[in-house]
Amino acid sequence: MHAITIPEPGGPEALLWEEVPDPEPGEGQVLIDVEASAVNRADLLQRQGFYDPPPGASPYPGLECAGRIAALGSGVSGWAVGDEVCALLSGGGYAEKVAVPAGQVLPVPAGLDVRQAAALPEATATVWSNVFMIAHLRPGETLLVHGGSSGIGTMAIQLAKAVGAKVAVTAGTGQKLDHCAELGADILINYREQDFVEEIKRATDGAGADVILDIMGAKYLERNVKALAVNGRLAIIGLQGGVKGELNIGLLLGKRAAISATTLRARPLEEKTAIVAAVREHVWPLVAAGHVRPVVDREVPMSDAAQAHRVLEESGHIGKVVLVKP
Amino acid sequence: MHAITIPEPGGPEALLWEEVPDPEPGEGQVLIDVEASAVNRADLLQRQGFYDPPPGASPYPGLECAGRIAALGSGVSGWAVGDEVCALLSGGGYAEKVAVPAGQVLPVPAGLDVRQAAALPEATATVWSNVFMIAHLRPGETLLVHGGSSGIGTMAIQLAKAVGAKVAVTAGTGQKLDHCAELGADILINYREQDFVEEIKRATDGAGADVILDIMGAKYLERNVKALAVNGRLAIIGLQGGVKGELNIGLLLGKRAAISATTLRARPLEEKTAIVAAVREHVWPLVAAGHVRPVVDREVPMSDAAQAHRVLEESGHIGKVVLVKP
Repeated sequence: MHAITIPEPGGPEALLWEEVPDPEPGEGQVLIDVEASAVNRADLLQRQGFYDPPPGASPYPGLECAGRIAALGSGVSGWAVGDEVCALLSGGGYAEKVAVPAGQVLPVPAGLDVRQAAALPEATATVWSNVFMIAHLRPGETLLVHGGSSGIGTMAIQLAKAVGAKVAVTAGTGQKLDHCAELGADILINYREQDFVEEIKRATDGAGADVILDIMGAKYLERNVKALAVNGRLAIIGLQGGVKGELNIGLLLGKRAAISATTLRARPLEEKTAIVAAVREHVWPLVAAGHVRPVVDREVPMSDAAQAHRVLEESGHIGKVVLVKP
Repeated sequence: MHAITIPEPGGPEALLWEEVPDPEPGEGQVLIDVEASAVNRADLLQRQGFYDPPPGASPYPGLECAGRIAALGSGVSGWAVGDEVCALLSGGGYAEKVAVPAGQVLPVPAGLDVRQAAALPEATATVWSNVFMIAHLRPGETLLVHGGSSGIGTMAIQLAKAVGAKVAVTAGTGQKLDHCAELGADILINYREQDFVEEIKRATDGAGADVILDIMGAKYLERNVKALAVNGRLAIIGLQGGVKGELNIGLLLGKRAAISATTLRARPLEEKTAIVAAVREHVWPLVAAGHVRPVVDREVPMSDAAQAHRVLEESGHIGKVVLVKP
């Protein structure tokens, strides 16, 4: 088969579409003929040599895919060859075939084509696990999403609205904020022109955000804690603004607030399986009913993954950049 | 009645036993004839002027008490005049009478006298709400308790052991550690002589603590995050080591860990009621069965509260210092 390899870490040009050995499905795994994958920021870090695949994972990038089941490893039940599926991967999505534990596989939701489904696994699993399973966002509460127009952000807006929460977003352009509004965001904050702490307080009668989904890490830590409401929960899923920041524990304690920090990729199989099962139970019906949809910025041939990485690096996209079989 | 008043913030001598007006039970409250109260660190801060009572609370110190119900306010059911009870208070425990919402009242557990019961409400509510309701300590997990010989610490050791967890403690003397061991602590760390990060790792095959109950705040923040296991939860309930500290979010994220910070006193009535109900359901049977007991360092006449505060300031005590009706 062909796959995107990274012989030497570097810029987008480091991504090469090369002939590699086919993967084999191990015990409890299925082999997927990949129709499409999608780009995540972690892929950019992996390309630069900053984020090695976890032990046992495919060396090729790609944390999600969609396609058809080509073969079943031993001990797999509930799936058949030919099923249209998408999957959460530990790597290897930028390829013509990938082997994945059956517990990380989902059916293509009703009403979507297989390419659209490639945009769902990472965003739905990340948002559901953090905003709902860890931070327990409840109806009537306010969620603040940093980077509201990203793949994660567009999914977070829709899921939070679907469960009856109020949603605030930050983004860097009016066009991005307009897209967030179309998806249902109630409070729009241009972080280049406005102070998000002031804006979220103003929009919530001084209360602040009950849950914050953050991708900035250190750079926003102090402001995020200020922006939290009493009993607020800050869920950090990215470190785009650095690793170490000063934490005002007194302020956190005064609010009886909490901070969690997670990555999805490093989680062990049993945790990923539990998250995927929860996504299938809670999110898939919302997708099938049309309340939640994948937001796809564009499709790019997988062999030109370099171009797709450039799009993410320039941050001009809205939603997911999907890689399709060339 | 008499109560301890604080006309001017200051040292222990600022505490005066004075004649004050009797409190009246409001709607939904009971009036308790106080037999005993107990000293908490927050009382020392209040005495120094650093921790004002929340709005509506009694101006007198004392966050817990035990005694007999003297009168019922309107709308109270489930309690009768003469019942032996203990209660979680927002203040006013250092007094001959105190009025308290009925939802914060507990029966004196079977097998205890009323004075011993005064040592239970704050410690059980703080430990249960933080270690179990927020941090979800599970059987087989490891809890690290800083200040293992304190009132909170001695309760945390017993409750964690009662649910089948492994318990590590830090304390500053061998005598204190011996007491922790008698209560069931498995891993004893003298923080004056040992590095608690190294010791907890060594005792858990490198894994670290699943839950840490912390009273030090900033001073221990970096080391606590290092000492956490994957999926670990740091529950901060005190700031004896300062308010602001550097947080390594990258390390937190790599462990998929979480930090919570709470105080009990500032919680609204409905949260306190829920915590007290959970304590009655989960902790009281353990006390009645003899698996968990209040650890009382000494009894001091309430009129000599100054002496009790000196004991806590010198940190020579083990467990709770109880104030009894003079």
